Amino acid sequence: MSELDLLVKGGEAVIGQDVVKADIGIKDGIVTVVGAGLEASARETVDASGLLVLPGGVDSHVHIDQPSGSAAEMCDTFDTASASAAAGGTTSVICFAWQSPGESLAAVAADYAERARVSRVDYAFHLTITDPTEEVVEKELPALVAAGNRSIKIFMTYKGVGLEDREILRVLDAARRNKALVCVHAENNALIDYMTEKLLEGGLSAPKYFPWSKPSVAEREAVQRIIAFGEALDVPLEIFHVSGAGPAAEIERAQARGLKVWAETCPHYLTIVADDLDKPGFEGAKLIFGPPARTSADQEALWDYIRRGVISIISSDHSPSRYDDPKGKKVAGDTAPFSVIPNGVPGLAARMPVLFSEGVSKGRISISKFVDLVSTAPAKLFGLYPRKGTLAVGSDADFVLWDPRMKVTLTNAMMHHGSDYTPWEGVEVTGYPVATYLRGREIFRAGEILVEGGGEHLARPEYPMIEPREKFPTPFNPVERTVVS
Amino acid sequence: MSELDLLVKGGEAVIGQDVVKADIGIKDGIVTVVGAGLEASARETVDASGLLVLPGGVDSHVHIDQPSGSAAEMCDTFDTASASAAAGGTTSVICFAWQSPGESLAAVAADYAERARVSRVDYAFHLTITDPTEEVVEKELPALVAAGNRSIKIFMTYKGVGLEDREILRVLDAARRNKALVCVHAENNALIDYMTEKLLEGGLSAPKYFPWSKPSVAEREAVQRIIAFGEALDVPLEIFHVSGAGPAAEIERAQARGLKVWAETCPHYLTIVADDLDKPGFEGAKLIFGPPARTSADQEALWDYIRRGVISIISSDHSPSRYDDPKGKKVAGDTAPFSVIPNGVPGLAARMPVLFSEGVSKGRISISKFVDLVSTAPAKLFGLYPRKGTLAVGSDADFVLWDPRMKVTLTNAMMHHGSDYTPWEGVEVTGYPVATYLRGREIFRAGEILVEGGGEHLARPEYPMIEPREKFPTPFNPVERTVVS
Amino acid sequence: MSELDLLVKGGEAVIGQDVVKADIGIKDGIVTVVGAGLEASARETVDASGLLVLPGGVDSHVHIDQPSGSAAEMCDTFDTASASAAAGGTTSVICFAWQSPGESLAAVAADYAERARVSRVDYAFHLTITDPTEEVVEKELPALVAAGNRSIKIFMTYKGVGLEDREILRVLDAARRNKALVCVHAENNALIDYMTEKLLEGGLSAPKYFPWSKPSVAEREAVQRIIAFGEALDVPLEIFHVSGAGPAAEIERAQARGLKVWAETCPHYLTIVADDLDKPGFEGAKLIFGPPARTSADQEALWDYIRRGVISIISSDHSPSRYDDPKGKKVAGDTAPFSVIPNGVPGLAARMPVLFSEGVSKGRISISKFVDLVSTAPAKLFGLYPRKGTLAVGSDADFVLWDPRMKVTLTNAMMHHGSDYTPWEGVEVTGYPVATYLRGREIFRAGEILVEGGGEHLARPEYPMIEPREKFPTPFNPVERTVVS
Amino acid sequence: MSELDLLVKGGEAVIGQDVVKADIGIKDGIVTVVGAGLEASARETVDASGLLVLPGGVDSHVHIDQPSGSAAEMCDTFDTASASAAAGGTTSVICFAWQSPGESLAAVAADYAERARVSRVDYAFHLTITDPTEEVVEKELPALVAAGNRSIKIFMTYKGVGLEDREILRVLDAARRNKALVCVHAENNALIDYMTEKLLEGGLSAPKYFPWSKPSVAEREAVQRIIAFGEALDVPLEIFHVSGAGPAAEIERAQARGLKVWAETCPHYLTIVADDLDKPGFEGAKLIFGPPARTSADQEALWDYIRRGVISIISSDHSPSRYDDPKGKKVAGDTAPFSVIPNGVPGLAARMPVLFSEGVSKGRISISKFVDLVSTAPAKLFGLYPRKGTLAVGSDADFVLWDPRMKVTLTNAMMHHGSDYTPWEGVEVTGYPVATYLRGREIFRAGEILVEGGGEHLARPEYPMIEPREKFPTPFNPVERTVVS
Repeated sequence: MSELDLLVKGGEAVIGQDVVKADIGIKDGIVTVVGAGLEASARETVDASGLLVLPGGVDSHVHIDQPSGSAAEMCDTFDTASASAAAGGTTSVICFAWQSPGESLAAVAADYAERARVSRVDYAFHLTITDPTEEVVEKELPALVAAGNRSIKIFMTYKGVGLEDREILRVLDAARRNKALVCVHAENNALIDYMTEKLLEGGLSAPKYFPWSKPSVAEREAVQRIIAFGEALDVPLEIFHVSGAGPAAEIERAQARGLKVWAETCPHYLTIVADDLDKPGFEGAKLIFGPPARTSADQEALWDYIRRGVISIISSDHSPSRYDDPKGKKVAGDTAPFSVIPNGVPGLAARMPVLFSEGVSKGRISISKFVDLVSTAPAKLFGLYPRKGTLAVGSDADFVLWDPRMKVTLTNAMMHHGSDYTPWEGVEVTGYPVATYLRGREIFRAGEILVEGGGEHLARPEYPMIEPREKFPTPFNPVERTVVS
Repeated sequence: MSELDLLVKGGEAVIGQDVVKADIGIKDGIVTVVGAGLEASARETVDASGLLVLPGGVDSHVHIDQPSGSAAEMCDTFDTASASAAAGGTTSVICFAWQSPGESLAAVAADYAERARVSRVDYAFHLTITDPTEEVVEKELPALVAAGNRSIKIFMTYKGVGLEDREILRVLDAARRNKALVCVHAENNALIDYMTEKLLEGGLSAPKYFPWSKPSVAEREAVQRIIAFGEALDVPLEIFHVSGAGPAAEIERAQARGLKVWAETCPHYLTIVADDLDKPGFEGAKLIFGPPARTSADQEALWDYIRRGVISIISSDHSPSRYDDPKGKKVAGDTAPFSVIPNGVPGLAARMPVLFSEGVSKGRISISKFVDLVSTAPAKLFGLYPRKGTLAVGSDADFVLWDPRMKVTLTNAMMHHGSDYTPWEGVEVTGYPVATYLRGREIFRAGEILVEGGGEHLARPEYPMIEPREKFPTPFNPVERTVVS
Repeated sequence: MSELDLLVKGGEAVIGQDVVKADIGIKDGIVTVVGAGLEASARETVDASGLLVLPGGVDSHVHIDQPSGSAAEMCDTFDTASASAAAGGTTSVICFAWQSPGESLAAVAADYAERARVSRVDYAFHLTITDPTEEVVEKELPALVAAGNRSIKIFMTYKGVGLEDREILRVLDAARRNKALVCVHAENNALIDYMTEKLLEGGLSAPKYFPWSKPSVAEREAVQRIIAFGEALDVPLEIFHVSGAGPAAEIERAQARGLKVWAETCPHYLTIVADDLDKPGFEGAKLIFGPPARTSADQEALWDYIRRGVISIISSDHSPSRYDDPKGKKVAGDTAPFSVIPNGVPGLAARMPVLFSEGVSKGRISISKFVDLVSTAPAKLFGLYPRKGTLAVGSDADFVLWDPRMKVTLTNAMMHHGSDYTPWEGVEVTGYPVATYLRGREIFRAGEILVEGGGEHLARPEYPMIEPREKFPTPFNPVERTVVS
Repeated sequence: MSELDLLVKGGEAVIGQDVVKADIGIKDGIVTVVGAGLEASARETVDASGLLVLPGGVDSHVHIDQPSGSAAEMCDTFDTASASAAAGGTTSVICFAWQSPGESLAAVAADYAERARVSRVDYAFHLTITDPTEEVVEKELPALVAAGNRSIKIFMTYKGVGLEDREILRVLDAARRNKALVCVHAENNALIDYMTEKLLEGGLSAPKYFPWSKPSVAEREAVQRIIAFGEALDVPLEIFHVSGAGPAAEIERAQARGLKVWAETCPHYLTIVADDLDKPGFEGAKLIFGPPARTSADQEALWDYIRRGVISIISSDHSPSRYDDPKGKKVAGDTAPFSVIPNGVPGLAARMPVLFSEGVSKGRISISKFVDLVSTAPAKLFGLYPRKGTLAVGSDADFVLWDPRMKVTLTNAMMHHGSDYTPWEGVEVTGYPVATYLRGREIFRAGEILVEGGGEHLARPEYPMIEPREKFPTPFNPVERTVVS
């Protein structure tokens, strides 16, 4: 064996689904050798004693640097967002090439590719389609999927963003022909409009009424509808940010029928409830995200659906806006009605610590399940595996040194993002990233971001015809598909 | 790195859930290093080019050398059965220390320990309790579990073997106190007796009426009952040999309620249907096993439950009797009524080839899922993991070199077992074991058994309090529980 | 007792849910007395020996005399349609005051009231809203409900007729405030458009492709959506013409959650399957109705849902167009693509004979259940009970003399409707109406229509707050609600 | 019309499912005429103004005069029990001909026939089989069913009373051949024994621990098992005294599969919860009945299952023992462990008032549903309809004059039974019987029992092959089956 670039010694690594006491040798950014008491020579050695060595997180739902002035403007650039990712143990993000109505999707994708060059972590793009013209769907989409973007994002709600049924079907039809998976924000737009109108007519405009305006039944309905469309057209679907028991039950029914439907939830649905928005002053606005926070019963149900595999991915849905900012939550001061407050919370850096603490440290899930939820499963579903999502020999040497016993009280400063707050300010977690490595290069340690740039675009192959909820996406085909080479 | 004992080069290994092109280095029977293009020195090197390197199979339901003269007499000793295991890629078996009524369970266990010394593969024991006296349950059981036997087998049917409800509860109560899991043959004895009586009264005694005598509803009922008992007493359960959709649906409901219930099925339920027993002459007798073969609709359902994880283990339920033998299927010549024919089929050697062919080669499941079903999941559930069930660094170097493209027509001679037939005689499979290694030592290659003896007893820790259907049995505890050391 | 107007002697009457051998005395159009061997004096006596005396049918879904030139033009006037009703044993119809876009609902209702004056049977109106302007919903609707029209009909499909989600919510909101029930044609419009487009692009335009264009999943989706809306706004719903198992299962789930959701199906869904549209020439066009015919498995499921009460009403959905007519099925000759052929079949006269024959004579349902499905249940749900829907003392003397043993081969001439065909031409039924009486007056006998006009408008009270699937719509309140006076 | 014996004037009668303002004329104990403002001559007229006229109650689960010294000794004779029935509006009871082990069922039935001669209300018998010898099942049973006893009662629990599985199957097999329905007390005996033993070992012997000893899962298990047996042998079943959500859900699943399974519950399950047994002193013993009281969530579920028709009958399960009596609840003074206290509560007289008050007066069910639950449905299921269970012309003139507005505080004295307490002592109900008539003869009025004896035995035809949950038991056959003549 020629000299290694890096040797990670003495840790307990999660490799595949196994937790193993093993050293890991890295060369050219790739995991090259895994062994007990490796005595290989290496240019550099890092001591991981007492630490877990986890695959770097794959966050498959992250909004970064979305167009200024658009409905989806974000307060993070790739510079700040990628710092936040690194600070939370995440080494790959899938963000959005966001088409606004009237725009060329190809132009948008090119623009994002440019913006993303400063990223410190690797990245890929979902194609957000808000205006599925024939030009976009029939001309631009095939080339974009072929270029490595094999997932599409659509909205069923939000004015100017959400698609009508006929538009959704046009996108699904194109997705099937181009072998792309479709990710869906599923909420019934009309019902939310109706509820919002009634609440505002009644003067119920404070942030705490936001969850009232987006009832669970509105989410369940849209989940049922998109499942029906996916079923009719045989298109694989990922239901984004499932917020509670109602929609999750529909997803389970669909999976039991054999449909290709996957689901994610996010740490905020597991830790924040609707009543938390009832805070003094305008603080509740910080917790406005859609779908909204639900109840503690929904949280118990979500943990159960996670354990049973119905929900197989946990993303951040990082959608940062600032709080004390006229372009942020206080868009119209502290009396703005909930309906004009930008939705979304920052969560890139907090995702893995919050989930580890709530999940693993509290005994709800195992370490292996944690790694699957935050890294392996999203890598598989979105075409990054086995390059990402595991520490197998041949995979990219993206990893986190994680101290499972460290107690940390979260503050916004630790998040390294562009927002001026975190929903978990002051929350103590057990378990925290000590250092993050991307392709063998240390990018974060002890609270400090160590690099500028360095992230690469991750081109992804077209979507295979796969069975629902299967771990491994393809029937046996050792040469072309399942081997790391 | 000191010199390796063995280096497996050029294969595609399943490690954890990953399929990896990697070499594997072994020392002292343990996987020591995994790497791409390993250049380590080794006393011996084996070329695995073009082959899969799979963890050795763990067959968690195998009847071997059961007492001559007992209801459960088998035609395999550990000598023949372990040869059959090796020939089929299986390196660990969990068989039964079978108490007949009136016997001491401790004495039985000691006797089996003695008989098993000739085994070529590693082995552990389930404690089969057919006479749960206070002496057995309160005095003998604690010591036996402490000695490494943390699973109990009970029957709900078969005269002289099946337990009454009150006896079952006594066993479950003891299992909970001693932290043992209970494995169950679940069929309603009275209903089978009734059906058998009616069929025989009507002169319907040919082998093909055997499935009529054991209807699916009899199995469903017993599954419901044992689940109720496990629920009431909070005891983890493994439902053995689920034969079709009815009982599987009950298991899914139980898992969805959060109960600690697991399930296995066997290759014969996936490949043989009740109508297959309607053969010329007495040939149908070869396919008499209980619960019996069902319908093709049940088979489709079983595949679905397998994919969704409701059924997580595939064992052989190897229960060999000879066909043309007065102690075997032709117990009373070829006119014996089905009710006196010994139940069970040999399956140790065929298990992995048949499942690989039907599952992986036909595209129903992935390679990783295959490995999970036949090795990793049983190792985890029964306390052998991570020593067995994976090829992680630190695990025993039990592996199979598997040619995924080899087409083989099965014959009884290939099975190396004590029976004079195999249910899959003449069946062509795609994918077959080329060689089998136990703790780094080659024990089978190219159809030949290479060793005598060499198997070790596998003592297993007590049953942890675990969540249902979770991959990894314990909440986070990296030092004591989840690390290979 | 003063002299009766009419005495029906010697029949077996269905009164309440009881089948009773009793004579029925009528005065002033009301059932006045029921008794065994009544010896009352009567101006007229009719012999019902060997016959059943059933409450007159209540057909709660009938399209009559819809606007010429509109999308929903019908080939029946109240003259022909009411003859058809009488000929089939139906004495009350609930038809539609059909608003076309841009029209005043109040004006439409007034117009229909005028047209209906020629009816031979009693009638009420659902208010079909296709253009829910504020004027219509906020101004006109309250007065119309108060005037006795407490049910609203909306469409979720059909261009220019189907409502968008936001419009549906506006109607539901008004329905709740005005205590009206909402009847729904539930099919997803966009999915049908998509399927239609794809089929026509592929040249698949024959009538037999019509069911392909409206797949079951499109109906299921719309049923799920309208249930979600009804659940969110707490509005009682009647799902019209459930065609098969998929949507029925959703309705059952809703009812099990305690929602106020009822369902109807129609005889054509129980007797015609999709494959029946594959006929020589253009004959398949005769069986074009939406939702379309499904499969025989769906029919079995429908019977099961009927028996279990999930589907509680059987209407005709009488929507007659002519076959050989440029305004009918042959709208563009016999090469018209399915997409331009008017939907709907005539069924008013055939409803009760077909259902009796398929249901009662074939042993699928009892006589009492038959009466409930075609008369009592619709009368209760739509506010006509106890005046209609039963032969209780105090109820209108609407009844049919029904020969349960008579075998009749159906022909179009028997139907007395305006269409030139019946879907059941040549079908032999067992059980047929001998004579029909409206409020004590004979209007049909032995195939002949005996009267001109005579029908009355049935004003209906506002919708009570009732429990789902309860037989009787109100909690106890003997004085105001449950008494016939 | 010849002179009537009795004319009931001015009431609101429930006839069939209709609530009708009508007078009822009676001759020879039969309802002869029903009419508005009847002017018939009658020997006697009773004023029912302001009152409901309901069909007399049919209580299909009543223990009376069971053998002194047996496990099932009761403190009511037919003298006291029939007084209690009359006082509560019940005019027909189905009680038990109770075979103790070793006894002849025929002899038992003959003995009961004798004892019952003093009854003031009509009566029929279920055949309770506790010792299904071949003599009993094959010889005696056919004659007893042919003699009018077409229902069998079996127990799955209680030492010396409960049957083993094989015995149950023998009874079911005979029931099918003889066309009898089987009523089942479904609780798992072994699990109750186990729980009881553990509780008593722990010194938890007070009455309040009784419900702990009989957990819901024990009832659910037995319900699943008997359903499996009924399914396998195709025997219609009535599940007695369903106590809560768990077993009810299983029954619903069985009905949805089309099985012939019916269910009853009792007023005590709707009004008493397990916590009520935790009373000062020994008072909790008064509420010991099996299955035991459950939770308020179970009560809500029971109401829902009642409304949806899954549970279609409400009986009293009248099983009276005295409280302050060494043969009663205080069998061993006030320190008796719960396990030796006789099970059961008196409920004959309270059944209808308690259910009317909780159900109708509180708006949970309609009057018609009430009548169906307590009279019509049991009459139909058990073969008494249409003679009993309705006030149709031709039916027995069994009726209750019921004041729906009367408020009454219940006391034991009102019950007219042999027990020294009622579980509803001091409870105020709204709605109460003013007078009770059996076949036209007044037997109770204003708290007073007016007659001695007068009840008749009700022979019942064999069980027809009927569809599950159908209102009317037979397919159309107007002459032989469905007509009152």
